[in-house]
Amino acid sequence: MNITRVAKTERLSRVVVHEKVAYFSGLTADDKSQDTIGQTEQILAKADAFLEKIGSNRALILSATIWLRDIEDFDAMNSAWTAWIDKDEPPARATVQAVLGLPDIRVEIQFTVALP
Amino acid sequence: MNITRVAKTERLSRVVVHEKVAYFSGLTADDKSQDTIGQTEQILAKADAFLEKIGSNRALILSATIWLRDIEDFDAMNSAWTAWIDKDEPPARATVQAVLGLPDIRVEIQFTVALP
Amino acid sequence: MNITRVAKTERLSRVVVHEKVAYFSGLTADDKSQDTIGQTEQILAKADAFLEKIGSNRALILSATIWLRDIEDFDAMNSAWTAWIDKDEPPARATVQAVLGLPDIRVEIQFTVALP
Repeated sequence: MNITRVAKTERLSRVVVHEKVAYFSGLTADDKSQDTIGQTEQILAKADAFLEKIGSNRALILSATIWLRDIEDFDAMNSAWTAWIDKDEPPARATVQAVLGLPDIRVEIQFTVALP
Repeated sequence: MNITRVAKTERLSRVVVHEKVAYFSGLTADDKSQDTIGQTEQILAKADAFLEKIGSNRALILSATIWLRDIEDFDAMNSAWTAWIDKDEPPARATVQAVLGLPDIRVEIQFTVALP
Repeated sequence: MNITRVAKTERLSRVVVHEKVAYFSGLTADDKSQDTIGQTEQILAKADAFLEKIGSNRALILSATIWLRDIEDFDAMNSAWTAWIDKDEPPARATVQAVLGLPDIRVEIQFTVALP
């Protein structure tokens, strides 16, 4: 049994690694004044930083749950997503609409990732 | 490290198999003119096809997240679900309401599945 | 391949253990007349019982998805959560708003947990 917790707060860890699988918290943008494309790009840059920190990479993402404040932003989120994702190794994915933690959060993404 | 990706598009894989666990994308019905029972049956038929493709089966489903466009359809979804599921080996499950990718999508289901 | 299913109904298992990972169903409070803090405390007490039953504990929780009927209850849920969680070993987490299975369900939590 081998668990590593990354970027802990008093209530959650941003990433928890167990054996060869990493469970990410829902990631949101820091600059919430940006639109859905900008917020998605910020989230994916955060994901890159955590992937590097745990020694994984985009090609090892297993699955993603994406919540959009407004499902009408589906194409906007996808434009940032498609530019970022490893096209040869895309994860399983589900995208639904949900009101998120703060009114100006347009998108939140939670990843499950394999380790090499 | 052993990852297999099934039915890839430019943005997602319908199923990602890592070691002995398969992560499914959220599945929706192709014929969205059908009601919630009909859409759920279509989703479960799709799941059967993917289960067969990866060499798994209904008795090895670990968990399911179910999103309903209208939570009032809970009983309708369950009637199709209960007819399909392996009653001796039912998965963990959570069901919540969410607006989904298109207005006529009544139900979306995401599975996590073990491999034999 | 080793799967154990705990507290089965005809449609789901409250917990499914596969190898060294346990997948929980979304847990809700039995006494739904209580407010969000009371309902969260009930859910966490249920989680304790299931954790004990499968031989795990709070320090081995990998991730949690939390649905709130009203995202305005975020702080109320967190007050019960923070009092309960292992502060040295907090899980990954995502919290979103969703209409849940019954009108008086204020909160639902789904855990993924490691076994020792």
